[in-house]
Amino acid sequence: MFWTAQSMNFDTSIIQTLNKVLMKAKTLVMLLQLGSIAYLNAQHEKVGKSPWGPEDEIGTLNMMDESSKLKILSSIGSGKVYDLSVEYFVGMPSFNALGDPPYQFWLTHTPDGTMVDNPNGLGHTMNKKVSYTGDAISMYTHMGTHIDALNHFGLNGQIWNGFQPEKYLGDKGWRKTGAETIPPIIARGVLIDVAKYKGVDILENNYRINSEDLRGALQQQGITLHRGDIVLIRTGQAQRYANAAEYLNEYPGINLDAVKWLVEDQKIMLLGADNLSFEAFPPEREDNWVPVHTYLLAEKGVMFIEQMFLEELAEDEVYQFAFVGSSLKLRGASGSPLRPIAIPIK
Amino acid sequence: MFWTAQSMNFDTSIIQTLNKVLMKAKTLVMLLQLGSIAYLNAQHEKVGKSPWGPEDEIGTLNMMDESSKLKILSSIGSGKVYDLSVEYFVGMPSFNALGDPPYQFWLTHTPDGTMVDNPNGLGHTMNKKVSYTGDAISMYTHMGTHIDALNHFGLNGQIWNGFQPEKYLGDKGWRKTGAETIPPIIARGVLIDVAKYKGVDILENNYRINSEDLRGALQQQGITLHRGDIVLIRTGQAQRYANAAEYLNEYPGINLDAVKWLVEDQKIMLLGADNLSFEAFPPEREDNWVPVHTYLLAEKGVMFIEQMFLEELAEDEVYQFAFVGSSLKLRGASGSPLRPIAIPIK
Amino acid sequence: MFWTAQSMNFDTSIIQTLNKVLMKAKTLVMLLQLGSIAYLNAQHEKVGKSPWGPEDEIGTLNMMDESSKLKILSSIGSGKVYDLSVEYFVGMPSFNALGDPPYQFWLTHTPDGTMVDNPNGLGHTMNKKVSYTGDAISMYTHMGTHIDALNHFGLNGQIWNGFQPEKYLGDKGWRKTGAETIPPIIARGVLIDVAKYKGVDILENNYRINSEDLRGALQQQGITLHRGDIVLIRTGQAQRYANAAEYLNEYPGINLDAVKWLVEDQKIMLLGADNLSFEAFPPEREDNWVPVHTYLLAEKGVMFIEQMFLEELAEDEVYQFAFVGSSLKLRGASGSPLRPIAIPIK
Amino acid sequence: MFWTAQSMNFDTSIIQTLNKVLMKAKTLVMLLQLGSIAYLNAQHEKVGKSPWGPEDEIGTLNMMDESSKLKILSSIGSGKVYDLSVEYFVGMPSFNALGDPPYQFWLTHTPDGTMVDNPNGLGHTMNKKVSYTGDAISMYTHMGTHIDALNHFGLNGQIWNGFQPEKYLGDKGWRKTGAETIPPIIARGVLIDVAKYKGVDILENNYRINSEDLRGALQQQGITLHRGDIVLIRTGQAQRYANAAEYLNEYPGINLDAVKWLVEDQKIMLLGADNLSFEAFPPEREDNWVPVHTYLLAEKGVMFIEQMFLEELAEDEVYQFAFVGSSLKLRGASGSPLRPIAIPIK
Repeated sequence: MFWTAQSMNFDTSIIQTLNKVLMKAKTLVMLLQLGSIAYLNAQHEKVGKSPWGPEDEIGTLNMMDESSKLKILSSIGSGKVYDLSVEYFVGMPSFNALGDPPYQFWLTHTPDGTMVDNPNGLGHTMNKKVSYTGDAISMYTHMGTHIDALNHFGLNGQIWNGFQPEKYLGDKGWRKTGAETIPPIIARGVLIDVAKYKGVDILENNYRINSEDLRGALQQQGITLHRGDIVLIRTGQAQRYANAAEYLNEYPGINLDAVKWLVEDQKIMLLGADNLSFEAFPPEREDNWVPVHTYLLAEKGVMFIEQMFLEELAEDEVYQFAFVGSSLKLRGASGSPLRPIAIPIK
Repeated sequence: MFWTAQSMNFDTSIIQTLNKVLMKAKTLVMLLQLGSIAYLNAQHEKVGKSPWGPEDEIGTLNMMDESSKLKILSSIGSGKVYDLSVEYFVGMPSFNALGDPPYQFWLTHTPDGTMVDNPNGLGHTMNKKVSYTGDAISMYTHMGTHIDALNHFGLNGQIWNGFQPEKYLGDKGWRKTGAETIPPIIARGVLIDVAKYKGVDILENNYRINSEDLRGALQQQGITLHRGDIVLIRTGQAQRYANAAEYLNEYPGINLDAVKWLVEDQKIMLLGADNLSFEAFPPEREDNWVPVHTYLLAEKGVMFIEQMFLEELAEDEVYQFAFVGSSLKLRGASGSPLRPIAIPIK
Repeated sequence: MFWTAQSMNFDTSIIQTLNKVLMKAKTLVMLLQLGSIAYLNAQHEKVGKSPWGPEDEIGTLNMMDESSKLKILSSIGSGKVYDLSVEYFVGMPSFNALGDPPYQFWLTHTPDGTMVDNPNGLGHTMNKKVSYTGDAISMYTHMGTHIDALNHFGLNGQIWNGFQPEKYLGDKGWRKTGAETIPPIIARGVLIDVAKYKGVDILENNYRINSEDLRGALQQQGITLHRGDIVLIRTGQAQRYANAAEYLNEYPGINLDAVKWLVEDQKIMLLGADNLSFEAFPPEREDNWVPVHTYLLAEKGVMFIEQMFLEELAEDEVYQFAFVGSSLKLRGASGSPLRPIAIPIK
Repeated sequence: MFWTAQSMNFDTSIIQTLNKVLMKAKTLVMLLQLGSIAYLNAQHEKVGKSPWGPEDEIGTLNMMDESSKLKILSSIGSGKVYDLSVEYFVGMPSFNALGDPPYQFWLTHTPDGTMVDNPNGLGHTMNKKVSYTGDAISMYTHMGTHIDALNHFGLNGQIWNGFQPEKYLGDKGWRKTGAETIPPIIARGVLIDVAKYKGVDILENNYRINSEDLRGALQQQGITLHRGDIVLIRTGQAQRYANAAEYLNEYPGINLDAVKWLVEDQKIMLLGADNLSFEAFPPEREDNWVPVHTYLLAEKGVMFIEQMFLEELAEDEVYQFAFVGSSLKLRGASGSPLRPIAIPIK
């Protein structure tokens, strides 16, 4: 409400001055409110201290033990093995917007080339007889089916469990929570087929999966989550994997509400999805460009697997299974490729 | 024996001529003999035609089926999981003698660097809050714990099953038998601890394991091989892995006799060892610088895993187990890293 | 001309049949003509045999000798040096459509990182004192300001002077005409500012510069070409260099007519331009996707420099100058970066 | 001198106590002296503030101006051009002890490979006709003939002119003094052939060239240095370049005394040598593992070129010449390759 000259029968200049003061006060209040929110957010978002101790580097993967692994392995009821990984090839989709290297593959030795180069010094006859092929690769570590290590995103200069760059980040990566610390992962896996639940082949562009979607899909599938589960969320986006431009264009993802429900209410151990980059862009919060990443990795110590291939599981309606996956032990790395498998259980 | 002028009381010029003729004849015989050997060798060493048909790209891995996989998975009797893989780090041992790239790891994003560079354009405050770490790798595909694809070595311009470079080798690798064709591998694994059998920590430099060693060790371990087994041979060399120079220096390996016995008599499916490069150098045959490689890959369609970590299995005397391993699907590649696991069976 | 029923008072069906026959005959003649052209083209396009002998690897660069170099160096009349090269940076424009690696730059040592990693083993105090920075790059060889070596494009399985891949192309590049064979280049340079001649800042998208444009611009500039000259053609495209998408989008280029006039009539020695990829796409001929490249490199032995920076020369209207440039001696390579300079002459 | 019981006729226990006190005092003095030296050293070794102002990024290269460049260019008296650069090839010598990547070269397109892969989608006939070769490289920036940028080594967390990593070192290199800031270099070059002066083909292993050697060689050559000169020092080591192990083994180098004389007394502008790494190892000072590097780059703002090829200059006894060299503009880099040339002057 503002004063008007007419209503008050006052000199208008005084009214104008009062109004200006009032607007300034309102702006101030608004700024204070925004500031409080930002302050509270900043308060809220800080790296988690691990319940598994100050030296912990693997977060919720601590939920696994020999007993939990034997339990799921003992329940295997099929020899049908589902391959949950995509292929690596030149031109494959990858996140290069910030300058990261795309996947490169090149031949270092070929049957014909060795005859010309004679690299082993053994001569033309030998190199003609023994047809040698060798090759090399180069890639960003967050490419193809891969797991994000806990150091991938931190908050305010720290990563999970309070480890700090000045102490632990060398030129060859992190000396804490690097990919080499991630153990082989064996646990019950649950597929949540959100695309099917929504009645579509692929979720619409930029769609953000929320906790209602997860609950609805689980109910439809007749599955209940357990503590320590690995939850794989299907958006259907993997069907676009062969075409990098389509795959990367405004992909659907998982929102904060959904992961909070999974982590805090359902106590899951590990997450996965068939998209890049698990969450959708633009981010759902203005003060954090990857709020799902920092929530999971830095606050809660929960890793997740991106760019999975879940189509065959979905087609066969295999919603629970033994998940077996072990990422490459890349020392110090913030992520690592892996080729996990799913085996149906009884 | 040669004629001499004295012994025969002949004109010496005739003798000399006769001797020359004789020497030429001897040389000719020798050359013919060498030629025959070379011819026989050449006859013997040629790429195998797959019993699984002209389109087969995976050789003996065809031995696996759902039934065989379920059988071994059903026999799992423990939740203790053995990690059979080594770490990847800058300076790790690798075969660079022929110019192949060593393992490289580099940071593409760091918490501090993003504050200076602002690569996402979101400014200092955001980049300070969200502490981003990213990294990239580059490597020869035959590095760390890795499997050799069937195209890695061929014979006389062909690879396994007769596939030819002019038709199937592009600039981005082989269009046949590339690493992406290798399925997830699940089968009974057997450890043959040759070092223990020989009573040493590590086999002596350049030692070549033969079939007697394998038979002796298996008898000592009380294990019988079955058709379709995965056989992992321990030399102990993995104990030197942290020191590249030591690890690569005159390592022990497996000889042709040993692998022929495993493949032809025991009908194993897959091999592995804890050394680079499975066989030892210098090669045991002069006419082939990698006779074990070409025998297994090109003649018999048998893949093998190099640079494994078998120390924990050996320490716990776990000689048979469920082997689970799935290599990265690097399209067209001649090899691929993997991190296999072993789980004890009942 | 066609027959009509009216004009001939004939039964129309006969006329129709005749017309059909005639049309088929015309089509046949047209196809034969096209076929002849294609045949003649195919005849015409074959690799050149060097007038400098069967071992020649540098084509028209043989035009340089000590005398020609001294002549141009002696004519230098200024100490103002024009830098004709663009910068290399992550995100710079490059031709990646066929999977070639973009420019990568990464830090291998940093002052802070060495304190954490201690890579030299000398400890924290030393690494804190001696603040070490090291870095590495990776790139396609045709990136930034670079020269195309004669092996970059050949015709029908041969390159310039008839060298063949089966004999000279190893896994580490060509053993003939590789970038290491390119000598330091010193000659008169001439700038042809086509953009200025056309009265525009930058030539329109996909514009193909022809020989008329070159003659017109030279006349406007008051310059006559000489045998052995280096001709640099300005499209203005370098102004878009900071924005890769714009720089690479439908860039203007030079057509076959223009380069034939330069090479055959004007006997120039070397060419250059401020665009990628010298010629424009789509190609002007249907039977060759890079007709200017194959004409210059394979048929005529003329190299050329792409992605130059010619803006300052143009602004100062420096149309003739001493050109000095020496590309990196990358053994076997099909191209090589260089940073040429131009110095005004009297 | 110590007291003895005999000489003083004292109770020995008192003497022993006195001696102990004395020894402690001596140790204290020694430690204080060492401390002072270390303190003075620490005082002495700090980054230089540029006489060319707080924004200067190129140090002594500021000595060049148009006049100085015209002067040397005008004195050119020959068209004979000396190539001062070595080749880049797989297996070339490079400094990899701290994990930096060796030179890699690989083919990305080959005439045969494009026929199999059809990367441009234009089909077999087109790819067979247009024989395409492309290639890529990867390398540490301090490899082959290269110049060290001023940021390569700093002191105590700063580089030349006081620039600091926290402000200017991003993930893509330094925002100050990066290789892109280095101008094309044209000045008088002087070869000091120390190997010839010493009467040897190649200086002995680990030999450290001092200022006496330089003065002696210059006198023998009849050359006087001028302010602003580029001084190239020949050890002869380039003769071992084809053999990496020999080239890198205990190479001779330049000592601190020599470079101080050149920089402080002779006011040279730029340095160069035919070895890696300009100075010799182990370092001549215990408190700095690269004292010549930090002196030149961080304290004095003097760049230098390593791994040059000076053999032809030496053979022809060309001791002064126009030096022309321009390094690749690698944004942010700590070093950059270049292929400089030398042209004899009147």
